[in-house]
Amino acid sequence: MDENAEQLWICKDHPPSLFRRFQFDGYNSLRIFLDRLADLSKETEYYPDISFGLNYANITVYASNEKVLSEDDKAFAQRVDELIDPT
Amino acid sequence: MDENAEQLWICKDHPPSLFRRFQFDGYNSLRIFLDRLADLSKETEYYPDISFGLNYANITVYASNEKVLSEDDKAFAQRVDELIDPT
Repeated sequence: MDENAEQLWICKDHPPSLFRRFQFDGYNSLRIFLDRLADLSKETEYYPDISFGLNYANITVYASNEKVLSEDDKAFAQRVDELIDPT
Repeated sequence: MDENAEQLWICKDHPPSLFRRFQFDGYNSLRIFLDRLADLSKETEYYPDISFGLNYANITVYASNEKVLSEDDKAFAQRVDELIDPT
């Protein structure tokens, strides 16, 4: 996980996880993101907890081993970042 | 909202809202439900808070006027129920 990605995600301890809130300009761009994330989840078998409303999505990536965040957990979070179209 | 639907949703007060947890046998049936719900949201302009993981979805329908649940709010919740394929 590169430095840029590390600044975007909040690292939590109980339970160990990475959290990030994504803000969107509207429902359509949110839905595109959620569809891409669903495909990424199926590809990687990583199923983060996702909560969303009209124009936001909160993503929580839990440590797969439930003890400590692995490089794979962090790599998944970084791939989630890459689903966002560069502005 | 018919009696059956009223038993399925938990009525909360602070803030006034309806909450229901939907459980699925797998990610595919969850995704079908979420896609249908997204279409219903666009049709009705009701955007409930949704949180989901691998095989569940928690739906919270807030009172549109932020004070009391209207018949329209309840009708939307019932339409969400109807997105589930009868087992």
